[in-house]
Amino acid sequence: MFTIAIHGGSGTITRSDITPEQEKTYRQALEQALVTGHAVLANGGPALDAVEQAVRSLEENELFNAGKGSVFSAAGKHEMDASIMCGHTLKAGAVAGISNIRNPVSLARLVMEQSENVLLMGRGAEEFAQLHNIPVEPDDYFYTDFRYHQLKEAQQANKVWLDHSRTNTGKGTVGAVALDQAGNLAAATSTGGLTNKMYGRVGDTPIIGAGTYANNQTCAVSCTGYGEFFIRAVVAYDISCLMSYKGLSLKEACDYVVRDKLKSIGGEGGLIAVDRAGNVELPFNSEGMYRAWRNQPGAGDVAIFG
Amino acid sequence: MFTIAIHGGSGTITRSDITPEQEKTYRQALEQALVTGHAVLANGGPALDAVEQAVRSLEENELFNAGKGSVFSAAGKHEMDASIMCGHTLKAGAVAGISNIRNPVSLARLVMEQSENVLLMGRGAEEFAQLHNIPVEPDDYFYTDFRYHQLKEAQQANKVWLDHSRTNTGKGTVGAVALDQAGNLAAATSTGGLTNKMYGRVGDTPIIGAGTYANNQTCAVSCTGYGEFFIRAVVAYDISCLMSYKGLSLKEACDYVVRDKLKSIGGEGGLIAVDRAGNVELPFNSEGMYRAWRNQPGAGDVAIFG
Repeated sequence: MFTIAIHGGSGTITRSDITPEQEKTYRQALEQALVTGHAVLANGGPALDAVEQAVRSLEENELFNAGKGSVFSAAGKHEMDASIMCGHTLKAGAVAGISNIRNPVSLARLVMEQSENVLLMGRGAEEFAQLHNIPVEPDDYFYTDFRYHQLKEAQQANKVWLDHSRTNTGKGTVGAVALDQAGNLAAATSTGGLTNKMYGRVGDTPIIGAGTYANNQTCAVSCTGYGEFFIRAVVAYDISCLMSYKGLSLKEACDYVVRDKLKSIGGEGGLIAVDRAGNVELPFNSEGMYRAWRNQPGAGDVAIFG
Repeated sequence: MFTIAIHGGSGTITRSDITPEQEKTYRQALEQALVTGHAVLANGGPALDAVEQAVRSLEENELFNAGKGSVFSAAGKHEMDASIMCGHTLKAGAVAGISNIRNPVSLARLVMEQSENVLLMGRGAEEFAQLHNIPVEPDDYFYTDFRYHQLKEAQQANKVWLDHSRTNTGKGTVGAVALDQAGNLAAATSTGGLTNKMYGRVGDTPIIGAGTYANNQTCAVSCTGYGEFFIRAVVAYDISCLMSYKGLSLKEACDYVVRDKLKSIGGEGGLIAVDRAGNVELPFNSEGMYRAWRNQPGAGDVAIFG
């Protein structure tokens, strides 16, 4: 038994917002990331590799707001966040506010495995990347007309946009969770954050416990949505605690947190989660979430709308 | 009924490490911060003000590793972190990797109250501070011979030091938790981090759920110790979850997390916590922790050693 689930962000995504052509493109991109991660698991590889590879695939696709497709911050820059956690060792790595790194999720993993730290930010994280010859890209690599126009629109409206509003058909964060054949869980998340976000703003993505959490005793979780609410509600770890301390199933815990707790504080978004038995949940309280999952028996799905 | 507790860091602090003279100085500094916060509560003021004022007092005392007394990072700079959370609204604010801000805890509160964000880092946070005329200080203000020699020692030993080893009699982080007369809880934490820490390293202090958490339904918590372990164990929120989901008392939750869970992953440190009934816990698994508490009936203590 093994399982992988991925997301490409949540938001106001309805069938009327994207053309059938666009829908097909998104589905193909999700399928590609899913297959990449699934292949690692099928070959007996670790959940950590599977979630890293799946997230790298999404980071390298400009459709999603992470890596190459990252949105512009208010300063007109790409300030990316990412994290990864191993459910077996409870080790974790994360980076915040980094620029020019091709695959932020791989830098997060390097922080986990090659430093004594969990979270590195900004220039310090970039220097660490350089020391370890992590691939970097020029600003041009991250430039897309689409994102640039989003920034200009947001600036004119004087708004900070979660990349999911009707005028910005949603992509948000990307992430993956997996259970491997050895019974180990892992989770990873990566994002460009909010369009026109304040310089230096950090969301839930690099925060262990908020945007990402994994523990072999319970579950692996990766979140997407308006990060500030996910930080305040410590969402990813909350799912784990509801299972371990209150005895809820993965489904019960996910429903309660996403549809009840998060909603009560105005937190829009969703998450993907897998438990130690391979059960998958992909709840969201927004109109849609780019998502996909597949397990070893062969069950699975690729979906976008609510 | 109202209660306040503060800490000035945990570590290898034993009676043989500091002179009676030094002990007296530390006790006076703790007393001063305690009285400052206690006075706010006695006047019917909010817990948020009490913890902010107590932490400001500790930040302005060069004895403690926060604000003025912050340690040097590997880059020879002062990179400070702080956070604050309101148990009534569940709103929170935090800053990471900031320099030259006189009172990082007050900047964290400003992020909570005057922005849409929870966490701002580095230059972005400093620009936000400037916009709001938050007091800044030149590098000289944060310079102490003592800290500079600690950096040189750490660099020679090629070590990253939690400010608590025998050669660096402990101070670590500072923090405060409070219950006010209206029944509201609040928590705040502030630190200069680790001596000789990697450029850009962020510990648990600015991470809501790890170093700081407050919720009127359960408790307010502020942590001190080797931050990476506190992030991985999501310590502050864990205490709250053990109370709300498992029905543990504050004491039971604190004992389990600090003496059992944290210890099992090698996480040295401690925390201060207060619950909605005004009970106080100040557990640590290190040899000592600078700590103090006082409630309205008049009970209280100032202590350093184990």
